[in-house]
Amino acid sequence: MPLSKGPQVFPRTEYLRRLAAVKSELMRQNIETLVVSSLANIAYLTGSIVRHTGPQCLVISIHKEGPTFIVRRADFAAAIYQTYLERDNLIVSPENRVATPDIDGYDAVIDFLHEAGLANGVVGLELNQIPAETAEKFKRRLPQARIVDSKKAVNWVRLIKSNFEISVMKEAAAIADAAIMRAIEVMRPGARETDIVADIVATQVRGAKGHPGTGFPPTAPLFFCSSPRTGAAHIPWSEDTIRDGSQINLEVSGVRHGYVVPLMRTFSVGSPSDRLLRRHEAHLAGLEAALNTVRPGATCSDVAGAFYRTIEKLGLKKDTRCGYSVGIDWAEQTASLNDVDKTELKPNMTFHLMLGNWMEEDFGYVISETFRVIESGVEVLTNMPRKLFEV
Amino acid sequence: MPLSKGPQVFPRTEYLRRLAAVKSELMRQNIETLVVSSLANIAYLTGSIVRHTGPQCLVISIHKEGPTFIVRRADFAAAIYQTYLERDNLIVSPENRVATPDIDGYDAVIDFLHEAGLANGVVGLELNQIPAETAEKFKRRLPQARIVDSKKAVNWVRLIKSNFEISVMKEAAAIADAAIMRAIEVMRPGARETDIVADIVATQVRGAKGHPGTGFPPTAPLFFCSSPRTGAAHIPWSEDTIRDGSQINLEVSGVRHGYVVPLMRTFSVGSPSDRLLRRHEAHLAGLEAALNTVRPGATCSDVAGAFYRTIEKLGLKKDTRCGYSVGIDWAEQTASLNDVDKTELKPNMTFHLMLGNWMEEDFGYVISETFRVIESGVEVLTNMPRKLFEV
Repeated sequence: MPLSKGPQVFPRTEYLRRLAAVKSELMRQNIETLVVSSLANIAYLTGSIVRHTGPQCLVISIHKEGPTFIVRRADFAAAIYQTYLERDNLIVSPENRVATPDIDGYDAVIDFLHEAGLANGVVGLELNQIPAETAEKFKRRLPQARIVDSKKAVNWVRLIKSNFEISVMKEAAAIADAAIMRAIEVMRPGARETDIVADIVATQVRGAKGHPGTGFPPTAPLFFCSSPRTGAAHIPWSEDTIRDGSQINLEVSGVRHGYVVPLMRTFSVGSPSDRLLRRHEAHLAGLEAALNTVRPGATCSDVAGAFYRTIEKLGLKKDTRCGYSVGIDWAEQTASLNDVDKTELKPNMTFHLMLGNWMEEDFGYVISETFRVIESGVEVLTNMPRKLFEV
Repeated sequence: MPLSKGPQVFPRTEYLRRLAAVKSELMRQNIETLVVSSLANIAYLTGSIVRHTGPQCLVISIHKEGPTFIVRRADFAAAIYQTYLERDNLIVSPENRVATPDIDGYDAVIDFLHEAGLANGVVGLELNQIPAETAEKFKRRLPQARIVDSKKAVNWVRLIKSNFEISVMKEAAAIADAAIMRAIEVMRPGARETDIVADIVATQVRGAKGHPGTGFPPTAPLFFCSSPRTGAAHIPWSEDTIRDGSQINLEVSGVRHGYVVPLMRTFSVGSPSDRLLRRHEAHLAGLEAALNTVRPGATCSDVAGAFYRTIEKLGLKKDTRCGYSVGIDWAEQTASLNDVDKTELKPNMTFHLMLGNWMEEDFGYVISETFRVIESGVEVLTNMPRKLFEV
């Protein structure tokens, strides 16, 4: 029996708007056909939320109205159910091409380009993420095409959110708040880290305000860097038990329909050390200086500069970027909050202002906010107090 | 203060054995230097369990004793703490190379190859997963080197586990069992899918038999494909409520130290339909036929053939492979259980025998076991009854 479409997160017009914006960018770059291979970009353009295991590509041609989504048979039902695409936008790649050495799902994409008369023009690939051997296959099997890099065309279109996307991100923000609140409740001396994290991830899935966590696994990743590992940025929880005097750097996120709102807070078990307090106060001042700089027309480097200069005056330094554009599947890999990125802020851009600081190998500190640029300046999406939490 | 090493999952000798096996494979392939960029392969060779955000590479040279791990500063503490490597095996890549357009962490890897005198030989890259633009950078910046594909050298070494690894996978198997048991307890008509999944993921983190879930986020991915979405293989849970007459195809995993043991079972809410029962019985017969075929000397295609021929006699068909080698971070991307893979089974290979079947868009069915090849035949790592669970 044919499967019907499931409830759609966004109206069809929203996807058509995104498609038009991508086509416009392709025309600007003189790319005739774009092969979208990034999961997040496919999700953006179709509504597909599948952590698939074989190649899937969305093909967009400036010469054709709709896109074509080439999926594994095992993922066809998901494409019907989740996306706004109609059946004639979908092509099934044979399952016997999964995990075979010489022919795979990308061959089905190339076959389609030949059949659709798109094999002779300028074909854009996402060279920042498509595997090297796959790009070689496109070159080999499309000898008449000119293969070029898409220069993250879709990622850059994602930078400015619609109000629909902002609504979804606010739901995700509430989940991020709930996850931190749950951490505050359960983080106690004597508690096992894994029991604390179990409660946090359950909260991430149950969600907040009636909106559960949904999307590419909404529980991942979660960083729980406790003493003596607070100098590490990206490690999972350990099998340790929380001790008096410990510090925990926690990075969680809320996820709705694949849109991620990250949130970081630092916890002190018992009274914080002077060193930790000074680090917190400096970062808090820097955070507020950065947020006060956010407004349409300011640049990413203005915001980062406000943070860097504030903490430098207080004798501190951060050598990582202090944030990045955020949306589907976490970082969008476009604008960064650092000293050199001159991207101009515009309303409905969303950033994770991420003040994690790992300058010493035995000591780090984290605090962050996810914000939206609005006409009048800035709107922080989460509601968590900017405290160094004492538990 | 210098950070000390954390508790090591495997003895140093285990990592040295793995390194020697990889070097031997490199010599066989005439590769002098291997740049390992896959997270799972780095984990295998070092113990690093970091879902990092910037390029990290492990460089192995047949001319040098130890490997060199090039990491972001923000991940340096993790490398010290988690891996067996000493400080002189570690190089910090500058943080200002994160998310910059023209220079990134891979440049630090290339710089190291130049400094270490490795820029003139045969350099292997993991072309199946390194981004196309990065492979181009290696070619451009190493004009004297001959860049070749590593042909998944590390992945193939991972195929046969040590007894240390088998022990860890048994802990992961117990977690997979616990996750399914929890699902059985909480899956009820009227329950929200998200509440059920929240309980499952909490169980995945809490673990089983005193061993919590640890590793690359041990909760991800989790597939919960309920009516009407049982024809989809890789979708996350929905916001639906479980109903009488519904079917749920559940794929979970237990994860210990990054080693994944997947497990799939199908659930029927109320009495299963005849169609579902027939599907289950045929797959059960096929599953047992496949397991009975497993022994050292048999091939992947023998095992798959036993399954395919059994269900074909019962009027069914499966066009996906029916399993794959499994270990760190799920599928190892080497041997597949299908009709064409002639890989010979050897003791301590581990496979996910995965009988998910999605031939119709509105109806699918799943059952699986993760097994180990042993001298006398087969050992199934999990203990879950091979039932169609009625809840």
